[in-house]
This record gives sequence, C-alpha cells and structure tokens, in this order.
Amino acid sequence: MAAPRSHSDSLQTPELDLLRTHSLEARNSSYSPYSNFRVGAAILHPDGSITTGANIENASYPVGICAERVAITRAVMEGKVRAVGAKEEDAKFGGLGTGIKALGVAVDTEGASPCGMCRQFIREFMPLDGEIIMFGNDGEYKVATLQELLPLSFGPDSLPSSDEMLQIRRQQ
Amino acid sequence: MAAPRSHSDSLQTPELDLLRTHSLEARNSSYSPYSNFRVGAAILHPDGSITTGANIENASYPVGICAERVAITRAVMEGKVRAVGAKEEDAKFGGLGTGIKALGVAVDTEGASPCGMCRQFIREFMPLDGEIIMFGNDGEYKVATLQELLPLSFGPDSLPSSDEMLQIRRQQ
Amino acid sequence: MAAPRSHSDSLQTPELDLLRTHSLEARNSSYSPYSNFRVGAAILHPDGSITTGANIENASYPVGICAERVAITRAVMEGKVRAVGAKEEDAKFGGLGTGIKALGVAVDTEGASPCGMCRQFIREFMPLDGEIIMFGNDGEYKVATLQELLPLSFGPDSLPSSDEMLQIRRQQ
Amino acid sequence: MAAPRSHSDSLQTPELDLLRTHSLEARNSSYSPYSNFRVGAAILHPDGSITTGANIENASYPVGICAERVAITRAVMEGKVRAVGAKEEDAKFGGLGTGIKALGVAVDTEGASPCGMCRQFIREFMPLDGEIIMFGNDGEYKVATLQELLPLSFGPDSLPSSDEMLQIRRQQ
Ligand SMILES: [Zn+2]
Ligand SMILES: [Zn+2]
Ligand SMILES: [Zn+2]
Ligand SMILES: [Zn+2]
Repeated sequence: MAAPRSHSDSLQTPELDLLRTHSLEARNSSYSPYSNFRVGAAILHPDGSITTGANIENASYPVGICAERVAITRAVMEGKVRAVGAKEEDAKFGGLGTGIKALGVAVDTEGASPCGMCRQFIREFMPLDGEIIMFGNDGEYKVATLQELLPLSFGPDSLPSSDEMLQIRRQQ
Repeated sequence: MAAPRSHSDSLQTPELDLLRTHSLEARNSSYSPYSNFRVGAAILHPDGSITTGANIENASYPVGICAERVAITRAVMEGKVRAVGAKEEDAKFGGLGTGIKALGVAVDTEGASPCGMCRQFIREFMPLDGEIIMFGNDGEYKVATLQELLPLSFGPDSLPSSDEMLQIRRQQ
Repeated sequence: MAAPRSHSDSLQTPELDLLRTHSLEARNSSYSPYSNFRVGAAILHPDGSITTGANIENASYPVGICAERVAITRAVMEGKVRAVGAKEEDAKFGGLGTGIKALGVAVDTEGASPCGMCRQFIREFMPLDGEIIMFGNDGEYKVATLQELLPLSFGPDSLPSSDEMLQIRRQQ
Repeated sequence: MAAPRSHSDSLQTPELDLLRTHSLEARNSSYSPYSNFRVGAAILHPDGSITTGANIENASYPVGICAERVAITRAVMEGKVRAVGAKEEDAKFGGLGTGIKALGVAVDTEGASPCGMCRQFIREFMPLDGEIIMFGNDGEYKVATLQELLPLSFGPDSLPSSDEMLQIRRQQ
C-alpha cells in the first residue's frame, strides 16, 4: 500500500493517542523566533515511555536543530536507543534499530514531513520498518515507514571505515 | 517500475557518458582526510554543460559539506540553476526546477546514494522527476528520481512565511 | 587576562568538581563510531543542577551533532535555559543568557575547545561572560568565556526580522 | 591592537577595493527567500584573482549554506585553495593556509561577522593570520584576523586519526 497511509500498522489506538498528545504538546518547547514554525516530536519506546523534542533555531539558520533530532539526541543520552550490550567492535551497527517503536512529528499547519536531514539522522537509530506519524494541528495524521521516507538510504553499512577507505583510495 | 533502475529514462547515452566521466573525475577534488571517502558529483544542465562538486570535510565533522551540495552551490553562483526572470515576490518558488537535467554522484566503492541532507538541499533546485545517477567506482550505475529518493518531501511549499506563521502561532 | 586561563573566575571549587565529573562521565554516552573521538559536555545551571550531552555521529558526517549542542537542546526541552515569562514579542531575545552558569566539555585527549558551530549554537542561550571549561582526559582544564571564544559574534541582534529585511532588500 | 579594526594590515587599497566590489556584488546571487538576509562573500587569492559566494537557504533552515562556505567550496573545486603538491599522508595538514589572502563578507545592513560555523569551515583552509573584512551596505568595513574571530580553535591538529582514537578509547 502506497505511503502515506491514514492509519498505523504497528500502533494500537492508545499508543497512537499517546504519541499524538506528546507530539502536539512538545511544540510548546519550540524555540523558533526566526521561522515561527513550531515543530514537536515524540518517540514511543518499546516499553511505552516517551521522549520528546522541539525545533531549536539559531540566528545563523544552518546552526539550528530540528525537533526530530532533538528528540533522538535526548533518547540517546537517556540510554533508551542505543544497544548497551554490543561489543565495541560492533558498536557501529549495534546501535541500529533499538529502542524506537515509532516517531511522531507535529506542526501548527495541516501537517508536514521530516526534512531529509532528519530522515538521515533517524536512519542511524530507528529500524527501517519503523513508522513515522505526521500530525497536523488538528491531530489528523499520515503514516509512512522510514524505509518509505528514505529509500535507498546512505547508512552505516554504506561507509567502510576510514582505514579501509584509505587502502582503497591508495589503489585508485 | 521500482527504483533504483539500471537505466536512465531521461538521458541519452552521450549525456550519461558525460555525467559518468565528470562525476568520477570530480572525486579528485575531494578534501576528505577524515573519512577518506571521496565523493564526486556532476550536474548536467539543459544546455549540455556540466557543473561538478566534491565533498569537503572539516575537523568538526558536522561542518563539512557533501559533494552534491557543493555542485549545486557552484551552479547557483554561476547563474545556472536559478530563475533569473522571476519576480522578487515569486523568487521563493521561481528558483525551483530550473536548470538541472540530471545529477550524478560517484564514489570509490560499488556505489552509494545521496544522504538525506543532500536530498533535501537538492529539493530546492531540481524538479522532482529529475534523475539522480549513482555511479560506482567501475562506472556501473543505478538510477532513481528525486521524488523516489525523497517522497513526501518537506519543500518550500510546506513552509508558510515567517509572518504568516506568526499569525497562526498567536491563535494557538 | 588572556584566554585561556587555568582557573575559573565564576565557579567555586565544588561547582568545578561537579562540572568536571559530569563532563568526563558524559563521554560514555557518546555515539562516535566514525571518529572514535568521544566528547562529553555538561551545563551547570544556576540552581546547581546539571544537564549533560555527548556527541552523536552519523554515517553522513555533516548530519551528526556535537556534545555541547546535545546538552543545550536537552536543557531547552527541560525548560532550564529559556525565559518562560518572556512576552512572545520578546521571545527572540528573551531566551538569551538564562539558565546557564557554565558549560564544561571533556575529551579523551589532552583537551579541546568547542568547534565554531557549537560556539554559535551556545551564543543563543548563554550569556557572553559565561565560562566554558575545557577538560582533558586527566581532569586538567582551561577556561575561557563565550565572548573570548566567539568575539564579534553574529547573534540574534545581528539579524533583523525576515519582514524588515524584505523591506531593506527591495530598496537596494 | 584590539579587533575589529577599521583598516587592513595586509591589503593594499586596490586589493581592498576589489574585495569590497566583489563582496557587495555577490549578494545578487543570494538565494534567501526565508530570511531575506542577503550575504555576499569574496576570496582574494594570492595571485589577485577572486572567488565569490552567496548564502543559499533551504525550506529546512539547517540545510542551507552560508556565503563564506559557498565561496570556499568553489575555490576548492577550482583548485585554488588546496595544496596540490602535498603528499597524501600530509594532505590533512597540507591543505591548510594555502591560497586565501583575505576573505570579504558583505550584507545589506551596517555589517555583520561570519557565524561560528563559517569560522570553523574557514579554519580548514585559511591561515590564522589571514584577514576577514566585514563590509556593510555602504562599503564601510571592519577587519579581524581568523585567529581573532576563532581563538583557541578546534582544527585538524586537534583531532587524532580515527584509528589512533580507537586505540586511546580502548584504554579508557
Ligand atoms: Zn529536519
Ligand atoms: Zn550528503
Ligand atoms: Zn561542535
Ligand atoms: Zn555562516
């Protein structure tokens, strides 16, 4: 079925309601004096807990950080989205796909999708089949998986180590 | 037909060859002492001319700029991808989709796709049905349109003006 | 006295010890499989509480976020660094300088300073005379104020509103 | 003498005039429909040639690129700011400080300084004693060296290789 959909395949109604409430509420923490475009984000963790984020802008526009990335950085700091048991050698991949069941995003307009930079940031921490729920101001939403929003992604497995690349580079 | 494809729908063989040659060659301008991952990019303009880019890294990793974005900034500066005749009021949208026929990207490995941040940057200047050609070190390639790589994009039309958003915000 | 200094002018010994402990400890939350360069950061709030951050990298290097910025986004979300009582009209400036007494940064080497992008991000939320304490792996440190690290800064007061700029632009 | 100064120590009058003309003129290439804050930049190379840049914004504000960085990426692509003769092993440092005699920045207001992110990007390619000339709309200017704008910088020599850091990290 083509994205976006108007229903979630992975969330039950109470989970969706929780994500909506927190995504919309998170907009209140937005620091967006330049665009006035408030964005709230919320991560639903497998244990039912929530981590929120909001966009934080800067006088130098490129220095600001979107809501989705703020939510994920918080979750990483709180130990909720990184594989703790991974061997150090595996850490590069071990962090993937752990601890994010779904990600909600809410705006003051009819709805918006994560920008490409956020899709890329999310890629490192959320499974490709994880759902992203995009809420409008009225709570209406659309749903797409990360794979649908970032197909053919450039992920950790696309990038050999700096040392491996140096060998390859020298052979060119 | 599902992306990626192994052929281009929009380019003739000589155009594809031109894009490949320039994308691969552009890797030589890469400044990538941190990842050692050289990336070259090339824009094919409607008039048959080419603008190239390469990734330029920084000791503070987030400050570096990818090859695709370097190519586009150069093309903007050279007046090749922005609608010159647009009224100032229309400039926000007038720049879209003008002057990029296809974008090539080349790496030292078997091939890689543009990161999400670049897909977002490209979105502002390339038509959604424009093709992105992803070349591996041996010249083999895969093809996908921007729409396929960045579906449900957050573009200029997703963002009301700062002034409009201020009115909306005050009503919340 | 020229920066950096080897002592803090604003912190008492217990505060400095607290900042050191948390900055060094925060490195354990670092997700840095690409650089392997772990960075921890800690904010000391006026009430004596601490908010920490660590660097979070991405396969697309420019998409990663430094430790200092992670710490500040968390503090913003927790309501610790933004002026709550500011009028909406004043919010642009009201957020400045509230809630950050000092910022600590710790690395695995002999010490390092915040990158320019972080200095710019911090600028929006920390007073210019606030101290940044840069810790090496052994706990030794150097001190400089934000003003010393980012003189002649481009801050919120450097940027007229988008609407004001439009008027100015039309007169050029 | 304290920064900023109202005169250049390194440029002769014709050089300064050239930099002013090109910095102000480059604003015309700005794509800034979101901030309406046009910025132009110009690099003066040792051979007397000029490379220009302008800010290029994006609907997702953090994805845009400032004028100073656009100018430098162009110069890198044109082979003007990177040490060509450096050994591959030295490339990390060899690129530094070559080919930029001075950098000009011009805005539509009374003058503005480069943001911290740009200071960091410039750091990789310009000598620390290189001058940055900040022009206002009327051509008046202020001058500061990169060292003055980004003291205690985090540069290439602050960052051991990923492989070295891995060894250090394992010993923690
Ligand atoms: Zn985003
Ligand atoms: Zn990219
Ligand atoms: Zn930083
Ligand atoms: Zn900048």
